[in-house]
Amino acid sequence: MSRPLILVSNDDGITAPGIANLVRIVRGLGAEVVVVAPDSPQSGMGHAITIGQPLRLDKSSVFGPEVEAYQCSGTPADCVKIAKHHVLKDRNPDLVVSGINHGSNASVNVLYSGTMSAAIEAAIEGLPAVGFSLGDYGHNADFSHVDEWVSQVCRHALDHGIPAGTALNVNIPKNSSRPIAGLRLCRQARAKWQEEFDTRLDPYRRPYHWLQGTFLNLDSGTDTDEWALAQNFVSVVPCQFDLTAYRGLEQLSQAWQLPLPEVNAAAEPPQPMPGEDYGPANP
Amino acid sequence: MSRPLILVSNDDGITAPGIANLVRIVRGLGAEVVVVAPDSPQSGMGHAITIGQPLRLDKSSVFGPEVEAYQCSGTPADCVKIAKHHVLKDRNPDLVVSGINHGSNASVNVLYSGTMSAAIEAAIEGLPAVGFSLGDYGHNADFSHVDEWVSQVCRHALDHGIPAGTALNVNIPKNSSRPIAGLRLCRQARAKWQEEFDTRLDPYRRPYHWLQGTFLNLDSGTDTDEWALAQNFVSVVPCQFDLTAYRGLEQLSQAWQLPLPEVNAAAEPPQPMPGEDYGPANP
Repeated sequence: MSRPLILVSNDDGITAPGIANLVRIVRGLGAEVVVVAPDSPQSGMGHAITIGQPLRLDKSSVFGPEVEAYQCSGTPADCVKIAKHHVLKDRNPDLVVSGINHGSNASVNVLYSGTMSAAIEAAIEGLPAVGFSLGDYGHNADFSHVDEWVSQVCRHALDHGIPAGTALNVNIPKNSSRPIAGLRLCRQARAKWQEEFDTRLDPYRRPYHWLQGTFLNLDSGTDTDEWALAQNFVSVVPCQFDLTAYRGLEQLSQAWQLPLPEVNAAAEPPQPMPGEDYGPANP
Repeated sequence: MSRPLILVSNDDGITAPGIANLVRIVRGLGAEVVVVAPDSPQSGMGHAITIGQPLRLDKSSVFGPEVEAYQCSGTPADCVKIAKHHVLKDRNPDLVVSGINHGSNASVNVLYSGTMSAAIEAAIEGLPAVGFSLGDYGHNADFSHVDEWVSQVCRHALDHGIPAGTALNVNIPKNSSRPIAGLRLCRQARAKWQEEFDTRLDPYRRPYHWLQGTFLNLDSGTDTDEWALAQNFVSVVPCQFDLTAYRGLEQLSQAWQLPLPEVNAAAEPPQPMPGEDYGPANP
Protein backbone atom coordinates (compact mmCIF):
# COMPACT_ATOMS: atom_id res chain seq x y z
CA MET A 1 0.00 0.00 0.00
CA SER A 2 1.26 3.48 -0.80
CA ARG A 3 0.52 5.52 2.31
CA PRO A 4 -1.39 3.61 4.95
CA LEU A 5 -4.20 5.25 6.89
CA ILE A 6 -3.96 4.57 10.62
CA LEU A 7 -6.73 5.40 13.09
CA VAL A 8 -5.54 6.04 16.64
CA SER A 9 -7.54 5.94 19.86
CA ASN A 10 -6.93 5.21 23.53
CA ASP A 11 -8.60 5.18 26.93
CA ASP A 12 -6.40 7.51 28.95
CA GLY A 13 -7.71 10.50 26.99
CA ILE A 14 -6.36 12.56 24.12
CA THR A 15 -3.85 14.48 26.25
CA ALA A 16 -2.17 11.39 27.77
CA PRO A 17 1.54 10.93 27.04
CA GLY A 18 0.83 7.36 25.85
CA ILE A 19 -1.22 8.45 22.84
CA ALA A 20 1.26 11.21 22.00
CA ASN A 21 3.94 8.54 21.78
CA LEU A 22 1.75 6.26 19.69
CA VAL A 23 0.90 9.05 17.23
CA ARG A 24 4.59 9.97 16.93
CA ILE A 25 5.59 6.35 16.25
CA VAL A 26 2.94 5.60 13.61
CA ARG A 27 3.68 8.89 11.87
CA GLY A 28 7.28 7.67 11.73
CA LEU A 29 6.03 4.72 9.65
CA GLY A 30 4.96 7.21 6.98
CA ALA A 31 1.28 6.72 7.75
CA GLU A 32 -1.52 9.21 7.41
CA VAL A 33 -2.88 9.45 10.94
CA VAL A 34 -6.39 10.26 12.15
CA VAL A 35 -7.00 10.41 15.90
CA VAL A 36 -10.38 10.07 17.64
CA ALA A 37 -9.82 9.75 21.37
CA PRO A 38 -11.78 10.41 24.57
CA ASP A 39 -11.75 13.97 25.90
CA SER A 40 -11.13 12.64 29.43
CA PRO A 41 -9.61 9.52 31.01
CA GLN A 42 -11.70 6.38 30.49
CA SER A 43 -9.60 3.76 32.26
CA GLY A 44 -11.48 0.67 33.29
CA MET A 45 -14.37 1.43 30.93
CA GLY A 46 -14.29 -2.06 29.47
CA HIS A 47 -16.49 -2.36 26.43
CA ALA A 48 -18.87 0.39 27.58
CA ILE A 49 -20.78 2.37 24.96
CA THR A 50 -22.86 5.49 25.41
CA ILE A 51 -26.60 4.87 25.28
CA GLY A 52 -29.22 7.47 26.11
CA GLN A 53 -26.82 10.40 25.78
CA PRO A 54 -25.49 12.02 22.64
CA LEU A 55 -21.78 12.40 21.95
CA ARG A 56 -19.73 15.53 21.46
CA LEU A 57 -16.91 15.52 18.94
CA ASP A 58 -14.50 18.42 18.61
CA LYS A 59 -11.41 19.04 16.49
CA SER A 60 -8.21 18.95 18.46
CA SER A 61 -4.82 20.44 17.67
CA VAL A 62 -2.87 18.63 20.38
CA PHE A 63 -0.84 16.69 17.80
CA GLY A 64 -0.02 19.73 15.68
CA PRO A 65 -1.37 20.92 12.34
CA GLU A 66 -0.45 17.79 10.35
CA VAL A 67 -2.57 15.33 12.33
CA GLU A 68 -6.35 15.29 11.92
CA ALA A 69 -7.53 14.78 15.49
CA TYR A 70 -10.82 14.82 17.38
CA GLN A 71 -11.72 14.56 21.02
CA CYS A 72 -14.94 12.75 21.81
CA SER A 73 -17.06 12.77 24.95
CA GLY A 74 -17.69 9.02 24.72
CA THR A 75 -15.93 5.80 25.65
CA PRO A 76 -13.10 4.20 23.66
CA ALA A 77 -15.62 1.94 21.86
CA ASP A 78 -17.72 5.02 21.01
CA CYS A 79 -14.61 6.71 19.60
CA VAL A 80 -14.04 3.86 17.16
CA LYS A 81 -17.70 3.81 16.15
CA ILE A 82 -17.84 7.56 15.50
CA ALA A 83 -14.46 7.46 13.75
CA LYS A 84 -15.54 4.71 11.37
CA HIS A 85 -19.10 5.83 10.67
CA HIS A 86 -18.89 9.61 10.97
CA VAL A 87 -15.32 10.91 10.67
CA LEU A 88 -13.84 8.50 8.11
CA LYS A 89 -17.14 7.43 6.54
CA ASP A 90 -16.17 5.43 3.46
CA ARG A 91 -12.42 5.40 4.06
CA ASN A 92 -11.39 2.23 5.83
CA PRO A 93 -8.23 2.56 7.90
CA ASP A 94 -5.48 0.05 7.09
CA LEU A 95 -4.86 -0.32 10.81
CA VAL A 96 -6.48 0.79 14.06
CA VAL A 97 -4.16 1.24 17.04
CA SER A 98 -5.16 2.03 20.58
CA GLY A 99 -3.00 3.19 23.48
CA ILE A 100 -0.32 3.30 24.52
CA ASN A 101 -2.10 2.52 27.77
CA HIS A 102 -0.49 3.63 31.01
CA GLY A 103 -0.59 0.26 32.77
CA SER A 104 -0.69 -3.42 31.79
CA ASN A 105 -3.68 -4.94 30.04
CA ALA A 106 -2.33 -8.47 30.16
CA SER A 107 -4.35 -11.50 31.26
CA VAL A 108 -7.81 -10.79 32.72
CA ASN A 109 -7.22 -7.03 32.52
CA VAL A 110 -8.18 -7.28 28.87
CA LEU A 111 -11.81 -7.47 30.03
CA TYR A 112 -11.69 -4.19 31.95
CA SER A 113 -9.56 -2.39 29.42
CA GLY A 114 -10.90 0.54 27.45
CA THR A 115 -7.74 0.38 25.33
CA MET A 116 -8.55 -3.14 24.23
CA SER A 117 -12.26 -2.45 23.82
CA ALA A 118 -11.37 0.15 21.19
CA ALA A 119 -9.29 -2.47 19.39
CA ILE A 120 -11.98 -5.14 19.75
CA GLU A 121 -14.65 -2.74 18.51
CA ALA A 122 -12.48 -2.20 15.43
CA ALA A 123 -12.17 -5.97 14.99
CA ILE A 124 -15.98 -6.28 15.14
CA GLU A 125 -16.03 -3.72 12.32
CA GLY A 126 -13.69 -5.98 10.34
CA LEU A 127 -10.67 -3.72 10.76
CA PRO A 128 -7.19 -4.95 11.75
CA ALA A 129 -6.51 -3.59 15.21
CA VAL A 130 -3.88 -3.59 17.95
CA GLY A 131 -4.07 -2.34 21.53
CA PHE A 132 -0.73 -1.33 23.07
CA SER A 133 -0.14 -1.12 26.80
CA LEU A 134 2.90 -0.38 28.92
CA GLY A 135 3.48 -1.99 32.31
CA ASP A 136 3.88 1.40 33.97
CA TYR A 137 0.85 3.08 35.53
CA GLY A 138 2.30 6.54 36.12
CA HIS A 139 1.18 9.57 34.17
CA ASN A 140 4.91 10.19 33.71
CA ALA A 141 5.53 6.63 32.51
CA ASP A 142 8.80 6.15 30.61
CA PHE A 143 8.06 5.38 26.94
CA SER A 144 11.68 5.74 25.77
CA HIS A 145 12.12 2.02 24.98
CA VAL A 146 8.85 1.33 23.15
CA ASP A 147 9.41 2.75 19.64
CA GLU A 148 11.15 -0.29 18.17
CA TRP A 149 8.46 -2.67 19.43
CA VAL A 150 5.41 -0.61 18.53
CA SER A 151 6.86 -0.01 15.06
CA GLN A 152 7.66 -3.67 14.59
CA VAL A 153 4.13 -4.77 15.52
CA CYS A 154 2.51 -2.11 13.30
CA ARG A 155 4.71 -3.04 10.36
CA HIS A 156 3.88 -6.73 10.77
CA ALA A 157 0.18 -5.84 10.92
CA LEU A 158 0.34 -3.66 7.80
CA ASP A 159 2.42 -6.14 5.81
CA HIS A 160 0.88 -9.44 6.82
CA GLY A 161 -2.54 -8.60 8.31
CA ILE A 162 -4.11 -9.85 11.49
CA PRO A 163 -6.28 -12.99 11.74
CA ALA A 164 -9.86 -12.14 10.82
CA GLY A 165 -12.06 -11.51 13.81
CA THR A 166 -9.23 -10.78 16.24
CA ALA A 167 -7.49 -7.78 17.76
CA LEU A 168 -4.01 -8.03 19.23
CA ASN A 169 -3.35 -7.30 22.88
CA VAL A 170 0.28 -6.12 22.99
CA ASN A 171 1.88 -5.44 26.35
CA ILE A 172 5.32 -3.90 26.74
CA PRO A 173 7.33 -4.29 29.96
CA LYS A 174 8.20 -1.24 31.99
CA ASN A 175 11.55 0.26 31.11
CA SER A 176 14.43 -1.15 33.15
CA SER A 177 18.09 -1.96 32.86
CA ARG A 178 17.17 -5.35 31.27
CA PRO A 179 16.86 -5.23 27.50
CA ILE A 180 13.49 -6.27 25.98
CA ALA A 181 13.80 -9.94 25.01
CA GLY A 182 11.66 -9.68 21.83
CA LEU A 183 8.07 -10.25 20.74
CA ARG A 184 6.35 -13.35 22.07
CA LEU A 185 3.01 -14.86 21.02
CA CYS A 186 1.06 -15.88 24.12
CA ARG A 187 -2.24 -16.96 25.46
CA GLN A 188 -4.08 -14.90 28.05
CA ALA A 189 -3.00 -15.99 31.54
CA ARG A 190 -5.65 -17.22 33.92
CA ALA A 191 -5.67 -14.63 36.67
CA LYS A 192 -7.94 -12.50 38.82
CA TRP A 193 -7.91 -9.54 41.11
CA GLN A 194 -8.26 -10.29 44.80
CA GLU A 195 -10.35 -7.35 45.82
CA GLU A 196 -10.60 -5.55 49.09
CA PHE A 197 -12.61 -2.48 49.90
CA ASP A 198 -11.15 0.30 51.98
CA THR A 199 -14.13 1.87 53.74
CA ARG A 200 -13.88 5.47 54.95
CA LEU A 201 -16.21 8.16 56.23
CA ASP A 202 -16.78 11.39 54.33
CA PRO A 203 -16.97 14.77 56.13
CA TYR A 204 -20.72 14.15 56.58
CA ARG A 205 -20.02 10.79 58.30
CA ARG A 206 -21.35 8.80 55.37
CA PRO A 207 -19.30 5.75 54.33
CA TYR A 208 -17.64 5.36 50.95
CA HIS A 209 -15.62 2.45 49.64
CA TRP A 210 -12.40 2.39 47.63
CA LEU A 211 -11.98 -0.63 45.41
CA GLN A 212 -8.47 -1.98 45.73
CA GLY A 213 -7.12 -5.26 44.58
CA THR A 214 -4.09 -7.48 44.45
CA PHE A 215 -3.38 -9.15 41.14
CA LEU A 216 -3.26 -12.93 41.37
CA ASN A 217 -1.72 -14.92 38.53
CA LEU A 218 -3.34 -18.36 38.87
CA ASP A 219 -1.51 -19.76 35.88
CA SER A 220 1.92 -21.41 35.93
CA GLY A 221 2.09 -21.79 32.14
CA THR A 222 5.14 -20.61 30.26
CA ASP A 223 2.91 -19.85 27.27
CA THR A 224 1.05 -16.95 28.92
CA ASP A 225 1.33 -13.20 28.58
CA GLU A 226 2.15 -12.83 32.26
CA TRP A 227 5.06 -15.24 31.96
CA ALA A 228 6.35 -13.47 28.85
CA LEU A 229 6.22 -10.07 30.54
CA ALA A 230 8.04 -11.44 33.60
CA GLN A 231 10.81 -12.58 31.21
CA ASN A 232 10.87 -9.08 29.71
CA PHE A 233 9.24 -10.06 26.42
CA VAL A 234 6.66 -7.94 24.63
CA SER A 235 3.54 -10.14 24.84
CA VAL A 236 1.25 -10.49 21.80
CA VAL A 237 -2.14 -12.13 22.37
CA PRO A 238 -4.70 -12.34 19.53
CA CYS A 239 -8.10 -11.77 21.15
CA GLN A 240 -11.40 -12.90 19.64
CA PHE A 241 -14.72 -11.44 20.63
CA ASP A 242 -14.44 -14.85 22.34
CA LEU A 243 -11.28 -13.52 23.87
CA THR A 244 -8.14 -15.74 23.51
CA ALA A 245 -7.99 -17.02 19.92
CA TYR A 246 -5.88 -20.18 20.03
CA ARG A 247 -6.34 -20.74 16.35
CA GLY A 248 -5.53 -17.13 15.63
CA LEU A 249 -2.32 -17.65 17.57
CA GLU A 250 -1.34 -20.44 15.18
CA GLN A 251 -2.25 -18.39 12.12
CA LEU A 252 -0.31 -15.42 13.36
CA SER A 253 2.65 -17.62 14.17
CA GLN A 254 2.76 -18.87 10.57
CA ALA A 255 2.11 -15.57 8.87
CA TRP A 256 4.51 -13.55 11.03
CA GLN A 257 7.01 -16.33 11.37
CA LEU A 258 7.17 -16.11 15.13
CA PRO A 259 7.45 -19.32 17.16
CA LEU A 260 4.26 -20.67 18.63
CA PRO A 261 4.51 -21.04 22.40
CA GLU A 262 4.43 -24.61 23.62
CA VAL A 263 1.05 -25.16 25.23
CA ASN A 264 1.40 -26.75 28.66
CA ALA A 265 -1.66 -28.92 29.00
CA ALA A 266 -1.33 -28.83 32.78
CA ALA A 267 -1.22 -25.07 32.82
CA GLU A 268 -4.31 -24.56 30.71
CA PRO A 269 -7.41 -23.04 32.24
CA PRO A 270 -9.50 -25.72 33.94
CA GLN A 271 -11.75 -27.60 31.54
CA PRO A 272 -13.21 -30.26 33.80
CA MET A 273 -14.96 -33.27 32.38
CA PRO A 274 -18.47 -34.29 33.41
CA GLY A 275 -18.19 -36.40 36.54
CA GLU A 276 -14.87 -34.83 37.51
CA ASP A 277 -15.08 -31.47 39.19
CA TYR A 278 -17.99 -30.59 36.91
CA GLY A 279 -20.48 -31.04 39.70
CA PRO A 280 -22.73 -28.71 41.60
CA ALA A 281 -20.84 -25.54 42.38
CA ASN A 282 -19.67 -24.94 45.95
CA PRO A 283 -20.38 -28.50 47.11
CA MET B 1 -28.14 -27.91 49.56
CA SER B 2 -30.61 -26.85 52.20
CA ARG B 3 -31.40 -23.25 51.41
CA PRO B 4 -29.35 -21.84 48.58
CA LEU B 5 -27.93 -18.32 48.73
CA ILE B 6 -28.50 -16.39 45.53
CA LEU B 7 -26.87 -13.03 44.76
CA VAL B 8 -28.83 -10.83 42.37
CA SER B 9 -27.59 -7.87 40.33
CA ASN B 10 -28.46 -6.17 37.05
CA ASP B 11 -27.58 -3.21 34.86
CA ASP B 12 -30.91 -1.41 34.53
CA GLY B 13 -30.70 -0.30 38.17
CA ILE B 14 -32.28 -1.53 41.37
CA THR B 15 -35.72 -0.05 40.63
CA ALA B 16 -36.13 -1.66 37.19
CA PRO B 17 -39.08 -4.06 36.75
CA GLY B 18 -36.68 -6.71 35.39
CA ILE B 19 -34.80 -7.13 38.67
CA ALA B 20 -38.05 -7.08 40.67
CA ASN B 21 -39.22 -10.04 38.59
CA LEU B 22 -35.91 -11.84 39.00
CA VAL B 23 -35.94 -11.39 42.79
CA ARG B 24 -39.52 -12.64 42.94
CA ILE B 25 -38.72 -15.74 40.87
CA VAL B 26 -35.58 -16.79 42.78
CA ARG B 27 -37.37 -16.24 46.09
CA GLY B 28 -39.99 -18.66 44.74
CA LEU B 29 -37.22 -21.28 44.53
CA GLY B 30 -36.87 -21.06 48.31
CA ALA B 31 -33.55 -19.25 48.09
CA GLU B 32 -32.11 -16.71 50.47
CA VAL B 33 -31.64 -13.65 48.30
CA VAL B 34 -29.11 -10.83 48.58
CA VAL B 35 -29.30 -7.99 46.05
CA VAL B 36 -26.50 -5.59 45.17
CA ALA B 37 -27.50 -3.56 42.13
CA PRO B 38 -26.64 -0.18 40.60
CA ASP B 39 -28.46 2.84 41.97
CA SER B 40 -29.06 4.10 38.41
CA PRO B 41 -29.32 2.57 34.92
CA GLN B 42 -26.01 1.23 33.60
CA SER B 43 -27.03 -0.15 30.21
CA GLY B 44 -24.20 -0.51 27.76
CA MET B 45 -21.58 -0.34 30.51
CA GLY B 46 -19.85 -3.47 29.24
CA HIS B 47 -17.24 -4.71 31.66
CA ALA B 48 -16.55 -1.24 33.07
CA ILE B 49 -15.26 -0.91 36.62
CA THR B 50 -14.87 2.20 38.72
CA ILE B 51 -11.29 3.39 39.07
CA GLY B 52 -10.26 6.65 40.65
CA GLN B 53 -13.59 7.17 42.40
CA PRO B 54 -14.91 5.51 45.54
CA LEU B 55 -18.22 3.65 45.62
CA ARG B 56 -21.32 4.35 47.67
CA LEU B 57 -23.34 1.44 49.01
CA ASP B 58 -26.68 1.98 50.73
CA LYS B 59 -29.30 -0.40 52.12
CA SER B 60 -32.45 -0.55 50.06
CA SER B 61 -35.94 -1.65 51.00
CA VAL B 62 -37.35 -1.81 47.48
CA PHE B 63 -37.84 -5.59 47.71
CA GLY B 64 -39.51 -5.50 51.12
CA PRO B 65 -38.22 -6.38 54.58
CA GLU B 66 -37.31 -10.00 53.80
CA VAL B 67 -34.73 -9.28 51.12
CA GLU B 68 -31.30 -7.93 52.05
CA ALA B 69 -30.69 -5.37 49.34
CA TYR B 70 -28.13 -2.65 48.58
CA GLN B 71 -27.87 -0.02 45.92
CA CYS B 72 -24.39 0.79 44.72
CA SER B 73 -23.11 3.82 42.83
CA GLY B 74 -20.87 1.65 40.64
CA THR B 75 -21.16 -0.47 37.52
CA PRO B 76 -22.61 -4.01 37.40
CA ALA B 77 -19.09 -5.49 37.67
CA ASP B 78 -18.42 -3.24 40.70
CA CYS B 79 -21.65 -4.50 42.30
CA VAL B 80 -20.47 -8.10 42.09
CA LYS B 81 -17.04 -7.20 43.45
CA ILE B 82 -18.44 -5.28 46.43
CA ALA B 83 -21.06 -7.97 47.03
CA LYS B 84 -18.49 -10.74 47.15
CA HIS B 85 -15.72 -8.98 49.04
CA HIS B 86 -17.60 -6.57 51.27
CA VAL B 87 -21.27 -7.53 51.71
CA LEU B 88 -21.06 -11.33 51.71
CA LYS B 89 -17.41 -11.58 52.76
CA ASP B 90 -16.83 -15.27 53.52
CA ARG B 91 -20.24 -16.53 52.38
CA ASN B 92 -20.07 -17.72 48.80
CA PRO B 93 -23.38 -17.53 46.94
CA ASP B 94 -24.56 -20.80 45.39
CA LEU B 95 -25.60 -18.84 42.31
CA VAL B 96 -25.24 -15.32 40.97
CA VAL B 97 -28.02 -14.10 38.68
CA SER B 98 -28.11 -10.83 36.78
CA GLY B 99 -31.05 -9.16 35.04
CA ILE B 100 -33.64 -9.57 33.88
CA ASN B 101 -32.33 -7.13 31.30
CA HIS B 102 -34.79 -5.01 29.39
CA GLY B 103 -33.54 -5.87 25.90
CA SER B 104 -31.67 -8.72 24.21
CA ASN B 105 -28.06 -9.50 25.03
CA ALA B 106 -27.74 -12.18 22.38
CA SER B 107 -24.84 -12.41 19.92
CA VAL B 108 -22.37 -9.50 19.95
CA ASN B 109 -24.48 -7.59 22.47
CA VAL B 110 -22.85 -9.73 25.16
CA LEU B 111 -19.79 -7.50 24.82
CA TYR B 112 -21.66 -4.28 25.57
CA SER B 113 -23.89 -5.78 28.22
CA GLY B 114 -23.63 -4.71 31.83
CA THR B 115 -25.97 -7.58 32.71
CA MET B 116 -23.53 -10.11 31.34
CA SER B 117 -20.48 -8.33 32.76
CA ALA B 118 -21.93 -8.86 36.24
CA ALA B 119 -22.30 -12.58 35.44
CA ILE B 120 -18.83 -12.78 33.90
CA GLU B 121 -17.30 -10.97 36.87
CA ALA B 122 -18.89 -13.62 39.09
CA ALA B 123 -17.45 -16.36 36.87
CA ILE B 124 -13.98 -14.79 37.23
CA GLU B 125 -14.55 -15.07 40.99
CA GLY B 126 -15.26 -18.77 40.52
CA LEU B 127 -19.00 -18.43 41.17
CA PRO B 128 -21.70 -20.04 38.99
CA ALA B 129 -23.51 -17.23 37.24
CA VAL B 130 -26.33 -16.58 34.78
CA GLY B 131 -27.33 -13.36 33.02
CA PHE B 132 -30.99 -13.18 31.97
CA SER B 133 -32.29 -10.85 29.28
CA LEU B 134 -35.67 -10.33 27.66
CA GLY B 135 -36.08 -9.30 24.03
CA ASP B 136 -38.21 -6.33 24.99
CA TYR B 137 -36.56 -2.94 25.48
CA GLY B 138 -39.43 -1.08 27.08
CA HIS B 139 -39.42 0.00 30.71
CA ASN B 140 -42.89 -1.57 30.79
CA ALA B 141 -41.69 -4.82 29.21
CA ASP B 142 -44.02 -7.77 29.69
CA PHE B 143 -42.40 -10.35 32.00
CA SER B 144 -45.52 -12.48 32.44
CA HIS B 145 -44.15 -15.47 30.47
CA VAL B 146 -40.64 -15.67 31.95
CA ASP B 147 -41.13 -17.37 35.34
CA GLU B 148 -41.08 -20.95 34.10
CA TRP B 149 -37.91 -20.41 32.08
CA VAL B 150 -35.95 -18.41 34.64
CA SER B 151 -36.86 -20.98 37.32
CA GLN B 152 -35.86 -23.87 35.11
CA VAL B 153 -32.45 -22.40 34.34
CA CYS B 154 -31.79 -21.52 37.99
CA ARG B 155 -32.80 -25.00 39.13
CA HIS B 156 -30.53 -26.62 36.55
CA ALA B 157 -27.68 -24.37 37.70
CA LEU B 158 -28.22 -25.16 41.38
CA ASP B 159 -28.62 -28.90 40.81
CA HIS B 160 -26.01 -29.59 38.16
CA GLY B 161 -23.66 -26.58 38.27
CA ILE B 162 -22.27 -24.56 35.41
CA PRO B 163 -19.05 -25.36 33.54
CA ALA B 164 -16.08 -23.89 35.43
CA GLY B 165 -14.92 -20.57 34.05
CA THR B 166 -18.16 -19.76 32.24
CA ALA B 167 -21.29 -17.69 32.79
CA LEU B 168 -24.51 -18.41 30.94
CA ASN B 169 -26.06 -15.83 28.63
CA VAL B 170 -29.78 -16.62 28.68
CA ASN B 171 -32.10 -14.68 26.38
CA ILE B 172 -35.87 -14.96 26.48
CA PRO B 173 -38.05 -13.96 23.53
CA LYS B 174 -40.51 -11.13 23.91
CA ASN B 175 -43.97 -12.25 24.95
CA SER B 176 -46.25 -13.03 22.02
CA SER B 177 -49.07 -15.32 21.01
CA ARG B 178 -46.50 -18.02 20.11
CA PRO B 179 -45.59 -20.30 23.00
CA ILE B 180 -41.92 -20.49 24.04
CA ALA B 181 -40.43 -23.51 22.28
CA GLY B 182 -38.09 -24.52 25.14
CA LEU B 183 -34.46 -24.02 26.21
CA ARG B 184 -31.83 -24.30 23.51
CA LEU B 185 -28.04 -24.43 23.86
CA CYS B 186 -26.43 -22.16 21.29
CA ARG B 187 -23.28 -20.50 20.20
CA GLN B 188 -23.03 -16.72 19.98
CA ALA B 189 -24.12 -15.58 16.53
CA ARG B 190 -21.66 -13.60 14.45
CA ALA B 191 -23.27 -10.20 14.16
CA LYS B 192 -22.58 -6.48 14.40
CA TRP B 193 -24.31 -3.17 14.66
CA GLN B 194 -24.32 -1.04 11.54
CA GLU B 195 -23.96 2.35 13.13
CA GLU B 196 -25.10 5.72 11.97
CA PHE B 197 -24.82 9.01 13.76
CA ASP B 198 -27.69 11.45 13.83
CA THR B 199 -26.06 14.88 14.10
CA ARG B 200 -28.07 17.77 15.53
CA LEU B 201 -27.43 21.29 16.78
CA ASP B 202 -27.99 22.24 20.40
CA PRO B 203 -29.62 25.61 21.34
CA TYR B 204 -26.13 27.13 21.29
CA ARG B 205 -25.57 25.91 17.70
CA ARG B 206 -23.01 23.33 18.75
CA PRO B 207 -23.30 19.88 17.14
CA TYR B 208 -24.00 16.69 19.07
CA HIS B 209 -24.27 13.18 17.76
CA TRP B 210 -26.72 10.40 18.61
CA LEU B 211 -25.39 6.90 18.16
CA GLN B 212 -27.95 4.73 16.42
CA GLY B 213 -27.51 1.39 14.83
CA THR B 214 -29.16 -1.37 12.90
CA PHE B 215 -28.48 -4.89 14.10
CA LEU B 216 -26.97 -7.11 11.41
CA ASN B 217 -26.94 -10.86 11.90
CA LEU B 218 -24.08 -12.03 9.66
CA ASP B 219 -24.55 -15.67 10.61
CA SER B 220 -26.86 -18.13 8.87
CA GLY B 221 -26.17 -20.94 11.35
CA THR B 222 -29.05 -22.78 12.95
CA ASP B 223 -26.89 -23.34 16.04
CA THR B 224 -26.80 -19.66 17.08
CA ASP B 225 -28.63 -17.72 19.75
CA GLU B 226 -30.17 -15.41 17.15
CA TRP B 227 -31.62 -18.36 15.27
CA ALA B 228 -33.00 -19.89 18.46
CA LEU B 229 -34.67 -16.63 19.50
CA ALA B 230 -36.20 -16.25 16.05
CA GLN B 231 -37.73 -19.72 16.54
CA ASN B 232 -39.04 -18.60 19.95
CA PHE B 233 -36.59 -20.67 21.99
CA VAL B 234 -34.92 -19.42 25.15
CA SER B 235 -31.24 -19.28 24.11
CA VAL B 236 -28.52 -20.50 26.51
CA VAL B 237 -24.92 -19.65 25.62
CA PRO B 238 -22.07 -20.51 28.01
CA CYS B 239 -19.60 -17.61 27.81
CA GLN B 240 -15.93 -17.86 28.75
CA PHE B 241 -13.83 -14.86 29.62
CA ASP B 242 -12.87 -15.94 26.08
CA LEU B 243 -16.49 -15.48 25.25
CA THR B 244 -18.25 -18.42 23.48
CA ALA B 245 -17.16 -21.63 25.22
CA TYR B 246 -17.71 -24.39 22.66
CA ARG B 247 -16.38 -27.02 25.04
CA GLY B 248 -18.56 -25.67 27.83
CA LEU B 249 -21.54 -26.12 25.52
CA GLU B 250 -20.72 -29.83 25.24
CA GLN B 251 -20.26 -30.18 29.00
CA LEU B 252 -23.53 -28.41 29.72
CA SER B 253 -25.32 -30.51 27.15
CA GLN B 254 -24.21 -33.69 28.95
CA ALA B 255 -24.77 -32.45 32.49
CA TRP B 256 -28.18 -30.85 31.80
CA GLN B 257 -29.23 -33.46 29.25
CA LEU B 258 -30.10 -30.91 26.61
CA PRO B 259 -29.26 -31.64 22.99
CA LEU B 260 -26.13 -30.11 21.60
CA PRO B 261 -26.87 -27.96 18.55
CA GLU B 262 -25.42 -29.33 15.35
CA VAL B 263 -22.53 -27.09 14.39
CA ASN B 264 -22.77 -25.98 10.77
CA ALA B 265 -19.19 -25.75 9.65
CA ALA B 266 -20.17 -23.34 6.89
CA ALA B 267 -21.93 -21.06 9.32
CA GLU B 268 -19.02 -20.78 11.73
CA PRO B 269 -17.22 -17.48 12.11
CA PRO B 270 -14.54 -17.13 9.44
CA GLN B 271 -11.27 -18.82 10.39
CA PRO B 272 -9.22 -18.30 7.26
CA MET B 273 -6.08 -20.29 6.67
CA PRO B 274 -2.78 -18.64 5.81
CA GLY B 275 -2.68 -18.01 2.07
CA GLU B 276 -6.46 -17.82 1.81
CA ASP B 277 -8.00 -14.55 2.89
CA TYR B 278 -5.37 -14.32 5.63
CA GLY B 279 -3.44 -11.71 3.71
CA PRO B 280 -2.83 -8.03 4.22
CA ALA B 281 -6.00 -6.38 5.41
CA ASN B 282 -7.93 -4.20 2.98
CA PRO B 283 -5.94 -5.30 -0.08
